[in-house]
Amino acid sequence: MTGSTRAPFTADDYRDRMDRAARAAADAGLAGLLVAPGPDMVWLTGYAPTAVTERLTLLVLVQGRAPVLVVPTLEAPDAAQAAGAPALALRDWTDGKDPYAATAALLAGTGRFGISDNAWAMHLLGLQRALPGTDYASLTDALPMLRAVKDLAELELMAAAGAAADATFEEIRKVPFAGRRESDVGGDLADLLRQFGHSQVDFTIVASGPNGANPHHEVGGRVIERGDMVVLDFGGLKDGYGSDTSRTVHVGDPTDEERRVHDVVREAQEAGFRAVRPGVACQEVDRAARAVIAEAGYGEYFIHRTGHGIGVTTHEPPYMIEGERQPLVPGMCFSVEPGIYLPGRFGVRIEDIVTVTEDGGRRLNDTDREMVIVD
Amino acid sequence: MTGSTRAPFTADDYRDRMDRAARAAADAGLAGLLVAPGPDMVWLTGYAPTAVTERLTLLVLVQGRAPVLVVPTLEAPDAAQAAGAPALALRDWTDGKDPYAATAALLAGTGRFGISDNAWAMHLLGLQRALPGTDYASLTDALPMLRAVKDLAELELMAAAGAAADATFEEIRKVPFAGRRESDVGGDLADLLRQFGHSQVDFTIVASGPNGANPHHEVGGRVIERGDMVVLDFGGLKDGYGSDTSRTVHVGDPTDEERRVHDVVREAQEAGFRAVRPGVACQEVDRAARAVIAEAGYGEYFIHRTGHGIGVTTHEPPYMIEGERQPLVPGMCFSVEPGIYLPGRFGVRIEDIVTVTEDGGRRLNDTDREMVIVD
Repeated sequence: MTGSTRAPFTADDYRDRMDRAARAAADAGLAGLLVAPGPDMVWLTGYAPTAVTERLTLLVLVQGRAPVLVVPTLEAPDAAQAAGAPALALRDWTDGKDPYAATAALLAGTGRFGISDNAWAMHLLGLQRALPGTDYASLTDALPMLRAVKDLAELELMAAAGAAADATFEEIRKVPFAGRRESDVGGDLADLLRQFGHSQVDFTIVASGPNGANPHHEVGGRVIERGDMVVLDFGGLKDGYGSDTSRTVHVGDPTDEERRVHDVVREAQEAGFRAVRPGVACQEVDRAARAVIAEAGYGEYFIHRTGHGIGVTTHEPPYMIEGERQPLVPGMCFSVEPGIYLPGRFGVRIEDIVTVTEDGGRRLNDTDREMVIVD
Repeated sequence: MTGSTRAPFTADDYRDRMDRAARAAADAGLAGLLVAPGPDMVWLTGYAPTAVTERLTLLVLVQGRAPVLVVPTLEAPDAAQAAGAPALALRDWTDGKDPYAATAALLAGTGRFGISDNAWAMHLLGLQRALPGTDYASLTDALPMLRAVKDLAELELMAAAGAAADATFEEIRKVPFAGRRESDVGGDLADLLRQFGHSQVDFTIVASGPNGANPHHEVGGRVIERGDMVVLDFGGLKDGYGSDTSRTVHVGDPTDEERRVHDVVREAQEAGFRAVRPGVACQEVDRAARAVIAEAGYGEYFIHRTGHGIGVTTHEPPYMIEGERQPLVPGMCFSVEPGIYLPGRFGVRIEDIVTVTEDGGRRLNDTDREMVIVD
């Protein structure tokens, strides 16, 4: 879950994001935000430390005050090079000093702060010790939609990542499947993603025959056979933004049942996509897709949520799941990926990344959703 | 900070480590240990999840009870394959359930628990919420020496990693430096480390001329020139254990001053090494190296601690720093790496990994510490 700093954003873009985040925190009743290295920091500042160590690096955002990046002295020259550095003040600390005391001086001694999910426990404990009057909430609990709404430049990068994933599918459908191991096809997928510009490959699922019935099967040594359904699900980061798409192909001619299950999933995916528009709750996307599968009699075989957000990571809020009442907002990006998993037999999943537009949704993946026959 | 699971340890080795850890925790007055994915978990169980996500994976160690690994259902099959799995019980939880409640049921509702430094803040907050009567200390604060003392099998792997780093230096000194970019030499270092068996390259510092005065400069686009001092500092993981060595080379003939500074650092490194023996406090190693540099008049230009521990990570306790009174124990492994950094001009650093023996220290790096002249 790292981030490229190559995204074409300026100090003004990062200043704007930090302003919005501080404002959102205040609106949510938080005294401020504490942002750790990782996707939150990449998104807010463009800074990704070379290595994440026990030395505290922490962005402090408090509405009405300039953002401050607390950073080890040794890392300060690197941090000063980040695209967002002109929009913040660096406060460095040297080995042997107490970084929590230095951070505490930047915070009011009381109140509730949001802290990055992936901040290290040792740093949270250090802050709790230095500031006994404060309490903390994880950023996903406190501000789940912090990075969810993408601006135009981000949407262009998301679309480019999606196009690279689609180009990968157009090539992989031409390779031989029968007689090769899942791991060989997985290697092809990784090579193609990189060839089409990905700097990081996060997953290359190739789940053939009965393996397709396990939604989290990655790749294994199983040799793909003629007659297999094969779930392909792959993605990663290109220029700092994520791709994630699934298609289910068939080796040779499918049976009537395989064709019917694939049709049901395709219609469910279409229904989920059509449910997307501003103001609709996330759970409605899940319900729309699930209803199609349930009506076809396969409800008990759709065993995961319909989708997850994507951006500087390939897995983040918002989640398309029953109970999530968050309304969709133009610029949000997430997967719509229903599936049917028949234990011991086969699985089908079809997935596109969808972004919310002013009056509906737009797919960022657009390869054939009909069942593709491979060799 | 990942870990290979290829290290040749058995379920009995992991059972023994978990026993010792639980006992050490009890001796330190802790109610138990909570171990997150990362180096602690790799060292205690051999398990390294494919991806670290927001889903809770946590090893619970309480003296007198069998170790339990709390794990998402989707990851349970992977966890069951870990070398240490026969020595623990798996307790899986499914999406939508509360993993903190599941963990809370394994803990006494009160007491102080040690938790991995790098556990996610969101998980610590979840535990604090589920168990308001508990409190927490980071493992490095509570049991800093948990992984510090290596057994014989570990020392063999450490020595092999050091030998691979030395082989890398023997090759890199033959390549041309003048006229090439730092990043080109850095690429050579990474290729060589892999060629000599590293599965993971953690850093390849090539800091030429004035860049050498920044101890954390990695590699840049600067073209190395005749007359440059060049700090090389590189390492990573081989078979799950770390390497880390530095040498400072010169492109062509050095000036008298460059030679003098290099001599001072070499003598400081020797003094640090000679201070190593069982029972001596870590800070004495730092003092011994620092005294040589201070006496030579360069004290203000030695701007970092003298060393850090190394094992399943390339950066961990014990730290060779003023104020660290931890006595050295046979089997500990750490760097001795003094340096002098002259801003805007050049830097020199010399680093070996040293392990504490019954009556002194043994270097795990042994390439030439005199200034090597390169082309």
